[in-house]
Amino acid sequence: MSTSCNDLPPCATLLERTRIVLVETSHPGNIGAAARALKTMGLRQLVLVRPRQFPAAEATARASGADDILAQAVVVDTLAQAVAECGIVIGTTARPRYLEWPVTPPREAAEWAAAQTGAAHLAIVFGREQTGLSNDELRFCQRAIRIPTAADFSSLNLAQAVQICAYEWRLAAPPEAAAAQLASEPLATGAELAGLIAHAKATMTRVGYLNPTRPQRLPDRLARLVGGGQLRHSEAQILRGFLSAIDEALADL
Amino acid sequence: MSTSCNDLPPCATLLERTRIVLVETSHPGNIGAAARALKTMGLRQLVLVRPRQFPAAEATARASGADDILAQAVVVDTLAQAVAECGIVIGTTARPRYLEWPVTPPREAAEWAAAQTGAAHLAIVFGREQTGLSNDELRFCQRAIRIPTAADFSSLNLAQAVQICAYEWRLAAPPEAAAAQLASEPLATGAELAGLIAHAKATMTRVGYLNPTRPQRLPDRLARLVGGGQLRHSEAQILRGFLSAIDEALADL
Repeated sequence: MSTSCNDLPPCATLLERTRIVLVETSHPGNIGAAARALKTMGLRQLVLVRPRQFPAAEATARASGADDILAQAVVVDTLAQAVAECGIVIGTTARPRYLEWPVTPPREAAEWAAAQTGAAHLAIVFGREQTGLSNDELRFCQRAIRIPTAADFSSLNLAQAVQICAYEWRLAAPPEAAAAQLASEPLATGAELAGLIAHAKATMTRVGYLNPTRPQRLPDRLARLVGGGQLRHSEAQILRGFLSAIDEALADL
Repeated sequence: MSTSCNDLPPCATLLERTRIVLVETSHPGNIGAAARALKTMGLRQLVLVRPRQFPAAEATARASGADDILAQAVVVDTLAQAVAECGIVIGTTARPRYLEWPVTPPREAAEWAAAQTGAAHLAIVFGREQTGLSNDELRFCQRAIRIPTAADFSSLNLAQAVQICAYEWRLAAPPEAAAAQLASEPLATGAELAGLIAHAKATMTRVGYLNPTRPQRLPDRLARLVGGGQLRHSEAQILRGFLSAIDEALADL
């Protein structure tokens, strides 16, 4: 095992501690796509057990900028080597259950893994495109992930499965930095809403759309329309401005 | 728009009601991989806006068994056509925020969408591989999804982005046996919202409130105002009626 997987900072995060292991991948394009998938989610370690063809131009093409992940990828002969330092090894399977291991969805597995602070190294292991992992290989795993799929079409591409697991790993990992805050724009006040409704009614009456003596359901609907949608202060101002412009246009003519 | 997207059972599930829209996809392989991705998660509707090449052998190869999704895919010329019947349109973006729309992670967006029983049809819209969606296209959307990624490598492949969103949609969907009844009062459709916005702009221009040659931020704000509040069909009709009455009053004078 190369040391490239092992040079961890003293307080490594879940993403830094987790390696993605691909066993006997047939298509080099899938290796490249997997590299891209894991890099987008902040994972960095890729370990390849007996890939059919690697390095390969198709892998580099599909990595699409994740070349560094491919360049650092470690190629080994056995799964035992790939997971040698790992305190936690999680397999992946399309079967609803296998052997005696707990089979969990990726979200639960990621949350579980995030809580296992005792393991310096973790592995998620993906099997062959056609046949997955053998029972012998699954015996290396403390648990297995099964990604929920449609009952009639469970054929997830390898890199897509890597993407979903990497995505859940990222969400389960403690944040690197505070997420971008959505700008908080104030909602319109009750007084602004009441003023808007009164103005709209006046203009509606003026153009003959509302008959104040027989309003029917329009006032109720107008109140719900204005009050029910969490109108922002700036939006209420836009509507008031529009109504005023209508009033002026009618006065000018 | 073909009827293939519209023949919904009376109690359609979230997955049955949601279409995946790909705008001007360059690589047919991505269309095939997207078809496979959505089928694994139980989605069935794929709509393609001006794909560079479709049908294509590469699309079929990458669909890998999801040929039926490709065969049923609807090809249209404009995004407006793609989302015409949709009460909810959700864009996707790599930007942390844009215009005035709420940008949410896929999980929150899926949970929100699952709760919107007023919309018979929903769309998730994915832009071009290199440049995403234009601002004009994002104006069709009531909100946008941004998939969380590593800060230094946010380059998600298109089909991978589809996979993650489809996965979250599947997890958020109520079990198929318990499909929610659609709310009795439907939301306005995309076509109704587009018509309302166009009408409002015309009337605003007529009364001098909007200068079409120097619109500044008004079109964006109008789009958010109309599209962001989950306007009901009946409410859109009220607003159209009011605008028509203004037009008539101006014509009479």
